[in-house]
Amino acid sequence: MHSMSDATGSPVTDLTRRVAALALDHVVDPPRGADPVVRFASPDELVAAFASSVGLALGADAPPHDADAVVAAARTVLHHSVQTTHPRFLNQNFAGVDPVAVVGDWLAAALNTANSTYEIAPVFHLLESALLTKLADVAGFPTAGPDQGPVELPPGLFCPGGSIALLYALQLARHRLQPDLVTAGAGPAPLSIFVSEAGHYGAGKAAALLGLGTDAVVEVATDHDGAMDPEALRRAMDDAVAADRTPLAVIATAGTTVTCAFDPLDEIADACAEHGTWFHIDGCYGASALFSPDHRHRLAGSHRADSMVWNLHKMMGMTQQCTALLLREPERLAACFSSGADYLFQTDKQFGEWDSGDRTYQCGRRVDAVKLWLTWKARGDAGFAARIDHAVAMADFSRMVISASDGAFVPLVDTGFTNVVFLWVPPDLRPLVPGDLTDDVRDRLHRLAPRIKARMQAEGTALVGYQPVHGINAFRLLFMNPEVRPEDVDAVLDHIARYGAEEWTSLD
Amino acid sequence: MHSMSDATGSPVTDLTRRVAALALDHVVDPPRGADPVVRFASPDELVAAFASSVGLALGADAPPHDADAVVAAARTVLHHSVQTTHPRFLNQNFAGVDPVAVVGDWLAAALNTANSTYEIAPVFHLLESALLTKLADVAGFPTAGPDQGPVELPPGLFCPGGSIALLYALQLARHRLQPDLVTAGAGPAPLSIFVSEAGHYGAGKAAALLGLGTDAVVEVATDHDGAMDPEALRRAMDDAVAADRTPLAVIATAGTTVTCAFDPLDEIADACAEHGTWFHIDGCYGASALFSPDHRHRLAGSHRADSMVWNLHKMMGMTQQCTALLLREPERLAACFSSGADYLFQTDKQFGEWDSGDRTYQCGRRVDAVKLWLTWKARGDAGFAARIDHAVAMADFSRMVISASDGAFVPLVDTGFTNVVFLWVPPDLRPLVPGDLTDDVRDRLHRLAPRIKARMQAEGTALVGYQPVHGINAFRLLFMNPEVRPEDVDAVLDHIARYGAEEWTSLD
Repeated sequence: MHSMSDATGSPVTDLTRRVAALALDHVVDPPRGADPVVRFASPDELVAAFASSVGLALGADAPPHDADAVVAAARTVLHHSVQTTHPRFLNQNFAGVDPVAVVGDWLAAALNTANSTYEIAPVFHLLESALLTKLADVAGFPTAGPDQGPVELPPGLFCPGGSIALLYALQLARHRLQPDLVTAGAGPAPLSIFVSEAGHYGAGKAAALLGLGTDAVVEVATDHDGAMDPEALRRAMDDAVAADRTPLAVIATAGTTVTCAFDPLDEIADACAEHGTWFHIDGCYGASALFSPDHRHRLAGSHRADSMVWNLHKMMGMTQQCTALLLREPERLAACFSSGADYLFQTDKQFGEWDSGDRTYQCGRRVDAVKLWLTWKARGDAGFAARIDHAVAMADFSRMVISASDGAFVPLVDTGFTNVVFLWVPPDLRPLVPGDLTDDVRDRLHRLAPRIKARMQAEGTALVGYQPVHGINAFRLLFMNPEVRPEDVDAVLDHIARYGAEEWTSLD
Repeated sequence: MHSMSDATGSPVTDLTRRVAALALDHVVDPPRGADPVVRFASPDELVAAFASSVGLALGADAPPHDADAVVAAARTVLHHSVQTTHPRFLNQNFAGVDPVAVVGDWLAAALNTANSTYEIAPVFHLLESALLTKLADVAGFPTAGPDQGPVELPPGLFCPGGSIALLYALQLARHRLQPDLVTAGAGPAPLSIFVSEAGHYGAGKAAALLGLGTDAVVEVATDHDGAMDPEALRRAMDDAVAADRTPLAVIATAGTTVTCAFDPLDEIADACAEHGTWFHIDGCYGASALFSPDHRHRLAGSHRADSMVWNLHKMMGMTQQCTALLLREPERLAACFSSGADYLFQTDKQFGEWDSGDRTYQCGRRVDAVKLWLTWKARGDAGFAARIDHAVAMADFSRMVISASDGAFVPLVDTGFTNVVFLWVPPDLRPLVPGDLTDDVRDRLHRLAPRIKARMQAEGTALVGYQPVHGINAFRLLFMNPEVRPEDVDAVLDHIARYGAEEWTSLD
């Protein structure tokens, strides 16, 4: 019936086993040290790389290919993909996936089901409930207690990514303000959402999608390192009220994207309480600090939030994606999102009260819980704490190297956590006094980071991201991969210095 | 640093290999025949099942567990999960995952990256582009042609599920009507969305989330089998305009959830053209008919749509989730969703023009493309056609058995495609004349299906869904698993008849 038969021992089974073996080899023996972080190629070069196996395009009458060709194609995928588990991949706010999480994800994929009803996902409903209870407990949200076992209505939901989870939170906030929202649509009263200048741009995107518009988003000033100024928030909320706008929600950021700054949650909670405003925490990046006894103080006040989003696929090494939306009042989910479809949420079936699908916008969701559950069982709370502490230790090490570099590297902002933002300084500009730079030199310095980055990519020695900070492109080391060692930090900084020196002289 | 070391040969590697082996065994040798479709257990029984390994809950100070315990837990997950690849799982609009898709998904998980920038996902950007071009070509949307190779701006996007994709489509439609939507928010003019009575409830959910409200959704009458009546649509649109509402979008359904009916796309396109209304196709379930030369006529007119959503994780056996949103004018994505974050979408980096993240609401997306690409390369267009044709052949076989059953089974609606909706009739009610049933008998018949379903679950012999059709719970066989054989159909129907006979006599 198919071009390839399906019986065990068949070509499909052979192909399946061979691709699985490739993937497994990659997981248990990932690249490190001098192995390339990327074998960078242009789109045309990538097209050429697939030409000898199956071809990249799917033509007008795409033929089946034999197992050898498909396995060769899978090898090409591996060969030219970015190695995000490499200890010298410090480029992104995810890195160093946990191998247990990978195979937990594989188990979920093998059992392919939708996390919508107990009927088709009984185990996954219980695992999700246990995890959400534990996460909510860690964050200080009210729960039945993590030792009580899974509950029908857990304190939240797993979502495909932080932006989707934010959409849920803001719609719940809007629904609390306007109980007929679901049927009647948004009323005419203008609403305002508050987020810091350093907060994630997802706030504006969510406001646009919800029909509020980005004009409804008020950007609140921050301190030098990127944490929200609570006095500025109070003024902004007062200004909104004075302009006849209702404060819909304050989005406090626990771990900003660039500097990993933590907004002062307790003071923000006070401001929200005064206005009766929904208090949301964007903990996508930084909420994992809660796992470490040494660092959980950064989120003091998290227990007062109405909602919090936490991406376990960032610092905690889950595969993409593993996002928990935690809720103080999870019963709001059904009130806001239920549709009661009778072909799926039959009221006359067994254990239908567990069904999560009718509490969600999505209905069917990929199972993101089992990988986290399996990893947590293997690592324990102590293992999760160790991952955070190691990340900060490596960040501290890099801060030490930078500070001992005699001005070769200059730190720009520093929140003492996992992000290290710095410039490499050409010898002729040391010691760097940013205020003294001419526009021309400033512009050359700004154009240097992309050149250094291109060299990293071309040689595959490291990957580190950059972005403008105070008008100059600065590099940002992001630590979370437990495989990073001091020698990796040294090597990455050495490469940046070498490329910098070579590129600086050729920059016009 | 961790409770379990990470070096090759370590306990973590041992655990990783053992869980991977469990998952792989399940994929290459899935349950079939008399193997249980489910080992159904209550929540309390599931908690008990994990008690001997790691425990289900994550307690207040969750300890690490050794590899033996975690592997035992993974076995329990497998043991008690629903076997959606079993040929007698005919319960859901997904089933029979393709083993090549599973290991393609594994490869993506092993390479764990976010599909946001070319920089961190170069290969995946090209594969996604090639796939979207091919899918758009199959649906008749304008493309550069599938033989041309990947393009920077592909005709769509992969999304985590049909509901999220619908949200994109409706926001794009609203943005076409109101160019200042993103900044100013939704204007006060009331909008209307049209979908058939048999269409997916996701339309109302999307309307609520966008701030339009479910009151904006107009349900259009269908024919007996569930296909939209185009004359009723025209009247509904005229009524809306007469009431000073602007028609925002018509959602035509290609494959309704219960009967897999196909709305008349060409006539709907005509109505949309007259009103300048966005023409969206919900092809989540049925768009895969396009792969079969024998069945693609059911979507005649698809080439005229502005957008179409297509869940390849339904009929085509991709793992959860693999949803393509196809767009006639993909340049609308950036106009509507771009934020231009400078730490991610640097304008001075290489091949940034390929970055998909700034064209999406989500930014980072799990890689859903590689599994579809690898499977398509292995199966070819002919293999994809064969999967659809086999599904219809098995549905036809079940229709034949039902029609030859001397009234033991009665078909209720029939669109001649992959869904078969029917009742089992107790001997004392044969031949069934629904109009002659007393309310009491009708009520008993309605309560019979849940009893039969509970027996299936208790014995694990089959899983088939039911829902009310004309007021009586009716079973619905959903065919798409290529492993289904006539003997599976016979066995499932025999079980239903046996459970029905046994339960009917005990129903009060």
